[in-house]
Amino acid sequence: MKKLINKPEDVVKEELEGIAVAHPDLVKVHFDPNFIVRADAPIQGKVGIVSGGGSGHEPMHGGFVGLGMLDAACPGAVFTSPTPDQMLEATKAVNGGAGVLHIVKNYTGDIMNFEMAADLARAEGIEIESVVIDDDVAVQDSLYTAGRRGVGTTVLAEKICGAAAEQRRSLKEVADICRKVNGWGRSMGMALTSCTVPHVGKPTFDLPEDEMEIGIGIHGEPGRTRMKIKPADEIVEMLMEPIISDLPYKAGDEVLLFVNSMGGTPLIELYIVYRKAYEIATKHGLKVVRNLIGPYITSLEMAGTSITMLKMDDDLIKLWDAPVKTPGLRWGV
Amino acid sequence: MKKLINKPEDVVKEELEGIAVAHPDLVKVHFDPNFIVRADAPIQGKVGIVSGGGSGHEPMHGGFVGLGMLDAACPGAVFTSPTPDQMLEATKAVNGGAGVLHIVKNYTGDIMNFEMAADLARAEGIEIESVVIDDDVAVQDSLYTAGRRGVGTTVLAEKICGAAAEQRRSLKEVADICRKVNGWGRSMGMALTSCTVPHVGKPTFDLPEDEMEIGIGIHGEPGRTRMKIKPADEIVEMLMEPIISDLPYKAGDEVLLFVNSMGGTPLIELYIVYRKAYEIATKHGLKVVRNLIGPYITSLEMAGTSITMLKMDDDLIKLWDAPVKTPGLRWGV
Repeated sequence: MKKLINKPEDVVKEELEGIAVAHPDLVKVHFDPNFIVRADAPIQGKVGIVSGGGSGHEPMHGGFVGLGMLDAACPGAVFTSPTPDQMLEATKAVNGGAGVLHIVKNYTGDIMNFEMAADLARAEGIEIESVVIDDDVAVQDSLYTAGRRGVGTTVLAEKICGAAAEQRRSLKEVADICRKVNGWGRSMGMALTSCTVPHVGKPTFDLPEDEMEIGIGIHGEPGRTRMKIKPADEIVEMLMEPIISDLPYKAGDEVLLFVNSMGGTPLIELYIVYRKAYEIATKHGLKVVRNLIGPYITSLEMAGTSITMLKMDDDLIKLWDAPVKTPGLRWGV
Repeated sequence: MKKLINKPEDVVKEELEGIAVAHPDLVKVHFDPNFIVRADAPIQGKVGIVSGGGSGHEPMHGGFVGLGMLDAACPGAVFTSPTPDQMLEATKAVNGGAGVLHIVKNYTGDIMNFEMAADLARAEGIEIESVVIDDDVAVQDSLYTAGRRGVGTTVLAEKICGAAAEQRRSLKEVADICRKVNGWGRSMGMALTSCTVPHVGKPTFDLPEDEMEIGIGIHGEPGRTRMKIKPADEIVEMLMEPIISDLPYKAGDEVLLFVNSMGGTPLIELYIVYRKAYEIATKHGLKVVRNLIGPYITSLEMAGTSITMLKMDDDLIKLWDAPVKTPGLRWGV
């Protein structure tokens, strides 16, 4: 296992210590229970937004805490759901009296623990809305998942809902926007290599030197199919076709096109992927009005990419363009 | 070779095509000769800033073209110097009558070709200053290099000089700031794995499963030493000690601390590295006033990290904080 870590059991704690000393102007890191919260939380009268999930997907979610995005993030152990007490404490820390939205990726543990945290928070008088993201078109059910997995659309939902909350929209309005984003977002990923969970010490799955896996999950869960490696353009076609046909996206639709690195794939390759994804979208009559290209929802050091498409309207475009100031995403301020 | 590419010989062309369709609001991509230029170039009365080098280090340099940073970047083939005609055409495209600064990393081919381009540009009546970045403390001479290699400080110089040019400082002033940044910046890197140049098709060097290389170059050039992999904290000590003692940085100095991924190392590990680098800097009495953490000067998919430290003064801090709007670095606008 080749990683820049100390003891495997200290990875998340030490990563959080790094975030704490790197970004004290943006976030505070709370330990035991672990959560990352905006330095200026709670903000009175603003809907708080909390997300979370297993670590290993950085910058998601902790890197998205800050103005215009999340109010708090709860990191679990690597690829392991955070606990209800983390979520409860984070929820209380960001409660400014206007309610709190939980953005939850569709994994069984996350769902169960966020539900428990929501119940506990409600018992303390905090209004909670929960929206589940389940945008991965690769497989219908999966390891750890009833229904589709939640992947790339989560990043976009966090940005867009964060902007809506910043405008002081109500909890119901922000939650409805989150549901709209999930309804209009579709993703699919692929892996060239496995990743290695630090405390396991060996690759999550074996993938021969000449093979790839299409439809991979962000924890290395099985995808749709394994096959010999193909040229990038063919791979992009295999990802874009299921995405486009699923919603379906229709000629004339305005879309945001998000090309993501699974962690080990560098930017030079992402632009080759983006080039073909843009070409396919354009051929379908879609108008790519915004994009995001880089490592935003990763699977440790896995090599591979995922593509997310989100149908946009004028409101979503304005919310996407609104200022954001987090460790992982920043513009306009 | 596991990469998201089509034909190896098309990697740079297709990457540039991807950049062209991804960021038409920020940059124009010129083909044959290849260069990336600000969409609004040339800007009358502003010093133009041009950099360039082999591809494979993305987002450097093409991802740093835009307001407050570079006016143009010249990408060569992977790990291969761009040609004088690329540099000349880029220089002419950004010449707004106030002269052009060439920021050149210290590699023999880059130096030679930028010198030739500068001569040709001067012959066409364009005032040119050239500043060579040679900040890598790992080795004194190297493959492709007489003297120290130019690495992470280049990114910081491009940001800071870009801000100075945006303020309409003169060519001599911007070049002097670049020299100051190079004089005050020091870097050192390490690799956990090799990278594979696409048209070569096999790893640049062999590194056993339990070994790492300290002092690696960004093209896989030999570093100082190979040894068994150590915990991250010990690795960071092996990078920080030569950096700090080289300038030397002194107690009370304000510094920018830049922790970079070589391409295949994900953010979760970079924060573990940052945590220790920050601790060591602080123990030396240094005050970390700014930082940068992420993949900014990469070596294709190489796993590993480099650390750059830059001594700061009030002017450099203000220039660092100034607005920047490029595909790879953005804030304040």
